[in-house]
Amino acid sequence: MSTYSIGIDLGGTNLRIAAYGADWTRFEAITLPTRVLDGPGAVLDDMCGAVKQLIAVYGGREKLVGVGVGSPGPLELPSGRLLEPPNLPGFEGLELKTELESRLRLPVFVECDANAAALAECHAGAGKSSGYQSLCMLTLGTGVGSGIILNGHVWHGFNGMGGEAGHVPVYHDGLPCGCGTRGCLEQYASATAIARAGQHVVLAKQNGNGSVTARSLAEAALAGDPDAKQVYKGVGEALGIGLASLVSTLNMPLYVIGGGVVAAWDLFAPAMFAELERGSYVYRLSKPADPFVLEAGRTNVVAAELGSDSGLLGAAMLPFFHSLNS
Amino acid sequence: MSTYSIGIDLGGTNLRIAAYGADWTRFEAITLPTRVLDGPGAVLDDMCGAVKQLIAVYGGREKLVGVGVGSPGPLELPSGRLLEPPNLPGFEGLELKTELESRLRLPVFVECDANAAALAECHAGAGKSSGYQSLCMLTLGTGVGSGIILNGHVWHGFNGMGGEAGHVPVYHDGLPCGCGTRGCLEQYASATAIARAGQHVVLAKQNGNGSVTARSLAEAALAGDPDAKQVYKGVGEALGIGLASLVSTLNMPLYVIGGGVVAAWDLFAPAMFAELERGSYVYRLSKPADPFVLEAGRTNVVAAELGSDSGLLGAAMLPFFHSLNS
Repeated sequence: MSTYSIGIDLGGTNLRIAAYGADWTRFEAITLPTRVLDGPGAVLDDMCGAVKQLIAVYGGREKLVGVGVGSPGPLELPSGRLLEPPNLPGFEGLELKTELESRLRLPVFVECDANAAALAECHAGAGKSSGYQSLCMLTLGTGVGSGIILNGHVWHGFNGMGGEAGHVPVYHDGLPCGCGTRGCLEQYASATAIARAGQHVVLAKQNGNGSVTARSLAEAALAGDPDAKQVYKGVGEALGIGLASLVSTLNMPLYVIGGGVVAAWDLFAPAMFAELERGSYVYRLSKPADPFVLEAGRTNVVAAELGSDSGLLGAAMLPFFHSLNS
Repeated sequence: MSTYSIGIDLGGTNLRIAAYGADWTRFEAITLPTRVLDGPGAVLDDMCGAVKQLIAVYGGREKLVGVGVGSPGPLELPSGRLLEPPNLPGFEGLELKTELESRLRLPVFVECDANAAALAECHAGAGKSSGYQSLCMLTLGTGVGSGIILNGHVWHGFNGMGGEAGHVPVYHDGLPCGCGTRGCLEQYASATAIARAGQHVVLAKQNGNGSVTARSLAEAALAGDPDAKQVYKGVGEALGIGLASLVSTLNMPLYVIGGGVVAAWDLFAPAMFAELERGSYVYRLSKPADPFVLEAGRTNVVAAELGSDSGLLGAAMLPFFHSLNS
């Protein structure tokens, strides 16, 4: 068989490991629970066990380009050291790259998970469909991650903290954020923020029964609930303000919105485009005739195409892009 | 003599043309008034006349790498077409690159003036001093311009409007901006904004006599006037909010503050650093021990080194960098 790569998507809940070919075909994926409470050693053991299992099945080490890992941020790069990942308590300071390389005796490349997802969207998703090799992606999940791809390569900043647009303040002195700042985009556009906002409006009607998720709130909005619709309008407004900053600063041809929340695209996108148009003259000068229809040579904002696999695929892409560069 | 380049700095008031060597030594500069009211044809004639004059003196066309122009934005690039420059009424749609190339029969490279200034600071100013080849520069003048340099090259966005950070909204629904948005950084940190804010506080004391400039207000602040100090504190706060977005998104090793307003660095920098620290966890994780002292491997914000010549030098650098790339 031809060359292949192994990607690892390290999440706060699940650990996924998969082998991919150079044409981004997936051969096989292994999903394990992330044993956060058992500590970094246990999780490293699980990663290495799965990698060795895939190597044994798929042609051995000769054809393996390397191992790529998408990890929750913030990370120090290119050293591949975890800083203080909020979803992986006890993993502070973990030398992810060094530990894996010494256990596997293979080249390992580490990126922030949102950057890995952006890389995958660039080469196999919205970027590929539209023909653009530069993009900025916002991932709306438990938090809001972001990744910047320039000419096909991740811009991870000088020490790996590039693309933390989830912590761009959109409302000065707004809601407090876990990062210590107030008014961060993450506090308005993450699934967590949506569920929290929905808790107030929906539980009041249900006399406090049941828990609200971003998804159940989207269902209520689609069924016509005006309060649920209002929450998603707020998501769109915050995204529009955040995008206005990004568009004015970066002038990318493509902005991709991904993560679980993007399933509610129809609920938040109209307010997002309205606010983006209001907040960025660069967008007004370069917007497509219809913001919902991709137009070459304009500033396009689109929904991600790859769904929840983008982080895993992007991780597997890392060794290929490194070998192209070196 | 060795190779040289000619730079043109097209301003709303002055037109400057200068020849520079490959080591960024300036041979000679010509300064003319920008004949805005006489229209684009007159200004193009003045540019070409000065370029030909410099060529006649400095070794002819053989050693000339090309002509670079720094122009007020917004521009369409690489085509080099002016869009709607607020300081050059009547110049809308001017094909600056094409017109100059056909008149001069020389390669011409056009960039936004703020990007040209950032390029100069990278290779001959704060970037050179600190050893960094990637930076983001904010130019605080009549407006607020910005430029992004990645690995020594201008990132001008997909159609030339990258680096319009002066129009990043820092206060949602804040002061109206000429660009049509509200709350843009430019409305709080440009010399124009400072003079306007000063007009209120100082003229009240002077019974309406005299006009206030950013400079005269700085002098009043340095002399102890509490209201003038307060205006500069506001400048610092707005800059800190804008920088927080940039730092969280870009994670550059170096941010350079330039333009005439930077003369008042001591008046606005303390509030700027306080707000930046409050608004960006990426900055908090990567700040130097003392924000006023450059520290390798951290996020540094410094004053520009080159003064008002940076735009002219950066314009002259453009042909050199293009010839390196091709």
